[in-house]
Amino acid sequence: MSDTMVIRRARDGFRWDGVERLTYKAEADAGFKAITRQVLLKDAGLACELRYFEMAAGGYSSLERHAHVHGVMILHGRGHAMIGTEVRALGPRDLITIPPLTWHQFRATSGEAFGFLCMVNCARDRPQLPSAAEVAALRATPAIAAFLDGTPLV
Amino acid sequence: MSDTMVIRRARDGFRWDGVERLTYKAEADAGFKAITRQVLLKDAGLACELRYFEMAAGGYSSLERHAHVHGVMILHGRGHAMIGTEVRALGPRDLITIPPLTWHQFRATSGEAFGFLCMVNCARDRPQLPSAAEVAALRATPAIAAFLDGTPLV
Repeated sequence: MSDTMVIRRARDGFRWDGVERLTYKAEADAGFKAITRQVLLKDAGLACELRYFEMAAGGYSSLERHAHVHGVMILHGRGHAMIGTEVRALGPRDLITIPPLTWHQFRATSGEAFGFLCMVNCARDRPQLPSAAEVAALRATPAIAAFLDGTPLV
Repeated sequence: MSDTMVIRRARDGFRWDGVERLTYKAEADAGFKAITRQVLLKDAGLACELRYFEMAAGGYSSLERHAHVHGVMILHGRGHAMIGTEVRALGPRDLITIPPLTWHQFRATSGEAFGFLCMVNCARDRPQLPSAAEVAALRATPAIAAFLDGTPLV
């Protein structure tokens, strides 16, 4: 456990001193685009981590699900999320809780960068990616098909 | 564990739909002023909570310590924090990790509201308040005495 104070100063452009901008995922085939990851708060004494994910315009996170819960706050820009069978437009400081085993994806749909804080348990399962059949089943909902095509209806 | 998506829309003024603005602490003698608390992200599946604390100009949090760690991101305005024997000026999106059993306090020192996100373990110990002798020992550091008087040197 850290026993010294850590301060990481905010820099312009949603960067922070001493915080590395990381590849979003190691698996290049996990179906994402133009998204980065920064780990903002992580300590042996904290049971969760706080990460910041940012997509460039047109970027998106993996379409995935997992048993662990996501607690999200939008920090920067506007975009859309698919959560289960719902598609929602989101903007700064909106809060989202994503339940276990719920398909979800975030997309930067507004021609600008879109970034969010995501709180997760440090101990968590690995994400699952959908099969082709599962994607087809999701696309049967028109709002989801439009979202997955990058042109959300809402 | 929640099994439905929860979205809480941001409103103006660092409020959120469905999020109650709470008394900072139940103990009125815990040495705080003009500060409120909102619980933004809390779920049976998450091992931490994310809260938002906001002080009006001149307000401050309790001077306290505890075994649990705080992970903090400034969200709104500028102010100062005392963490252990250090006093620091802080602004939007600065990150602070407060180690176990470290005296700390936040103050809205810039004539404006000052608000921060604070991530903590759901399972945590109760804060300890300093004795008069402990406050006197802290005040032996001039920068801390100035901070506690609301006129930080830095």
